[in-house]
Amino acid sequence: MNDRVLVFDTTLRDGEQSPGVRLSLDEKLEIGRQLVLLGVDILEAGFPISSPGDFQSVNTLAKELKGVTICGLTRAREKDIEVAAEALEPAERRRIHTGLGVSENHLRHKLRMTREQALEVGVNAVKFARQYTDDIEYFMEDSGRADLDYVYKVVEEVIKAGATTINVPDTTGFTYPNEYYHLIKGIIENVPNSDKAVFSCHCHNDLGMATANTLAGVMGGARQVEVTVNGIGERAGNTALEEVVMALFIRHDKFDVGTKIDTTQLLPTSRMVSRLTGMVVQRNKAVVGANAYAHSSGIHQDGVLKERSTYEIIDPKLVGAEKSEIILTARSGRHGLKHRLAELGFNYTDERFEGIYDAFVKMADTKTEVKEEDLRELVR
Amino acid sequence: MNDRVLVFDTTLRDGEQSPGVRLSLDEKLEIGRQLVLLGVDILEAGFPISSPGDFQSVNTLAKELKGVTICGLTRAREKDIEVAAEALEPAERRRIHTGLGVSENHLRHKLRMTREQALEVGVNAVKFARQYTDDIEYFMEDSGRADLDYVYKVVEEVIKAGATTINVPDTTGFTYPNEYYHLIKGIIENVPNSDKAVFSCHCHNDLGMATANTLAGVMGGARQVEVTVNGIGERAGNTALEEVVMALFIRHDKFDVGTKIDTTQLLPTSRMVSRLTGMVVQRNKAVVGANAYAHSSGIHQDGVLKERSTYEIIDPKLVGAEKSEIILTARSGRHGLKHRLAELGFNYTDERFEGIYDAFVKMADTKTEVKEEDLRELVR
Repeated sequence: MNDRVLVFDTTLRDGEQSPGVRLSLDEKLEIGRQLVLLGVDILEAGFPISSPGDFQSVNTLAKELKGVTICGLTRAREKDIEVAAEALEPAERRRIHTGLGVSENHLRHKLRMTREQALEVGVNAVKFARQYTDDIEYFMEDSGRADLDYVYKVVEEVIKAGATTINVPDTTGFTYPNEYYHLIKGIIENVPNSDKAVFSCHCHNDLGMATANTLAGVMGGARQVEVTVNGIGERAGNTALEEVVMALFIRHDKFDVGTKIDTTQLLPTSRMVSRLTGMVVQRNKAVVGANAYAHSSGIHQDGVLKERSTYEIIDPKLVGAEKSEIILTARSGRHGLKHRLAELGFNYTDERFEGIYDAFVKMADTKTEVKEEDLRELVR
Repeated sequence: MNDRVLVFDTTLRDGEQSPGVRLSLDEKLEIGRQLVLLGVDILEAGFPISSPGDFQSVNTLAKELKGVTICGLTRAREKDIEVAAEALEPAERRRIHTGLGVSENHLRHKLRMTREQALEVGVNAVKFARQYTDDIEYFMEDSGRADLDYVYKVVEEVIKAGATTINVPDTTGFTYPNEYYHLIKGIIENVPNSDKAVFSCHCHNDLGMATANTLAGVMGGARQVEVTVNGIGERAGNTALEEVVMALFIRHDKFDVGTKIDTTQLLPTSRMVSRLTGMVVQRNKAVVGANAYAHSSGIHQDGVLKERSTYEIIDPKLVGAEKSEIILTARSGRHGLKHRLAELGFNYTDERFEGIYDAFVKMADTKTEVKEEDLRELVR
C-alpha cells in the first residue's frame, strides 16, 4: 500500500444519534474498548455540551481508552469548546471537532448569517480551540450542496487559523460519487494551503450511496473516513465502517491505500454494536449481514463448491465469520445436495441419488430450508 | 425527463433466493399484484425449471397479472427454455431471460468451457428461445470481472441471434461505480449493433455499492435496472428498487431520466415484502427504513423545524410515509422540545421553559426517548 487512510469512528456520537438508541456509560465503554481492538484511529466519543451524561461519557472514555485519539464535537461557540476541552482533558491524544454550515440553505434557514459572518465565527472557533489542543478538525456542514468558491475560501481560512483536519460532510446524503470525488479533488487542488491538512469524508446514506461516495472521496485525495459500525446514525444513517474498510481491502488494486483495521474484528464489533444499541442489522447487509456468506440457489452453490471465488469476493474468515454456508432450498441443485449428503456421511449409488434428488425437490417446495433431519428422512 | 429507464423487478426470482426465504404461491401473487400497482415494467417471476413449485408460480403470475411483462429465468439449455416458455405461455407479454458466464473465472471453474464453446451455447440458446417470444434478455454472468474484448464479441453475436435486452451483471458485487460506468459505456460504444438492444444493470451489494453502480450504469447509457424490493437477494442482496428510483427522482438534475414507478407505493411495497419474506428491513435502511425520516439530535431538529430541506432531501410523503418525526432524546435541544410541547398544547412563560428544559435534559439522560407521557409529567 502506498498510503494510509485514517478511520474516524463516530458510532458513539453520530451513531448514537439514531432515533431509538441510548447507550449507558458502561455500554459506551464496552464499545469504545472494542473499537480500540478493531484499530480505529480516531474515536468521536460524543458532544459534551449536549447533556451531562454525554459530558461524563466523553470524559470517561478519554480517561480509560489508550492508543486512540479521542474526539469531542462542538458547535462553533466558545462555551461548547470549553466544555469539550474539559471533557477531553484526560485523553492521551485529544481532538476538538468544531465548525458550521457552508451551504446557502444552512446559512439562510438555520444559521441566519451571511457568508462573511459565518466564516468569522468559524475562524474564531478554531483559534479558540487551539489553546486546548493542536489537533483541530473543522466540519463544513452541508458541503455537498454548497457553493464551491465559498467552500475553498472557508478551507483556506480555517487552515490558516489552525485546523489540521477538514471534514467535508455530505450532510443530507445528496451527492453522487462522481460529484463527491470532484468536491474533494477540487478543494485539494484549489486551496493554496491544502497540503497542511487531512481531508475527511463524512457521508450519509439517504440515497444508499454513502459507501460509494466515501470511496470516491478517498479516490479524490481524502485520507480520513468518518464512519459508524453497521452504518447507524440519524435518518438512514452514516457510512458503514465495515463496507469502506472491506472495499479498500478487496479493491486495493484500485485504491492502493489501506487502513490499520483488524478486519477479523469486524463481525464481533458489528454484533456488539447491534446488541447494545438494539439496531438490528438486516440479513442482507453488506459484509456483516447474516446472509452475506450464505448461498441457497443451485447455480451459485455449484459455482462456490467448484471454486469459492465464482460467487464470493470476501473470504468470510477475513471478517471473523466461520465459513460460507450452503443452504438447501427449492432453488438448490444436485451439487449442493451431494455436498450436504457427503458432509453427513451418506453413501449411495448414482441411480439411488436421482431418487433422493427427486424427493428432495418435492420436499424443498414445501419448506424454507431442507435441514439435516430432513435429509436423514429423505435418504431413509 | 428526456428518457425513461425500465424497472425490471426480480424480487420474486433473485430476491426469493435469499437464504431463509420461501414464498407460497398466494404470497407471490400478492407481491406480484403490488408490484404491478407500484408500476414495474418487467417482473421476473421465477426460474421455472428449478422446481415444480417455481414452474407453477411463474405460470400463475403469467395468467393473473396484466399490464406488465412477465419474465422467466433459464440457463442456456433447450430444456430450461422449453419449460420457461410453457410456464410463460398465458402472459400478456412474456420475456425469456437466458445466458451464461463470460469471465475467465466462471468459464474455467464453473462452466468448464472455452470462450468459443460458451459463445456458441449462448447464441444457440437465444435462437432457440426466439421461437417462443421476440422479447429475449441475455445475461452475461460475472461481466464485472470479464475480459472486455470477449464481452463485446458476445454482445454483438447474441444481438445478431435475436437478443433484445443485454444484462450486464456484476454478479459478485466487485465493481466500483466508475468501472461499471465504463463497462456499460464501453459496450455501447464498441459493439457495432448496440443500438438494437437495451442494456441492463444487474448489481449486487457485497461491498455496499449496488445502488451507486446501477446509477453509474444508467449514466453510461443503460436503460433498464434490475432490482429487488428492500434489496433482498443472495448474500448481501441485489440493488434496492426504492434507492435507485428515489435517487433518479431526487437527482433528476443530474440523470435527466425517469421511471414510471408510483413512488407513493414504495413504503407499502417494502412493508409487504418484509412481512411476507420475513426479511427485516433495518431501521437505518435508506428510503424505507423506520428511521429514514426521523430526527433526534438538537442541531438537526432545529434545522428541520426551521426548514425541512436543511436535513431532509426526500419529502416522506413522496414514498408513502406520513411525515418527518421529531423524537426527543438526550441529544435534543430547546427547539425540538418547544415544538413537541406546542403540539401537546402547553403554554408556559420563557422563564418557566428554562426550568422545563433543565428537567428534560436530566430525564433524557435516563431514557431512550422522552415520550408524550414524560412531557406531561415534566410540565406538571
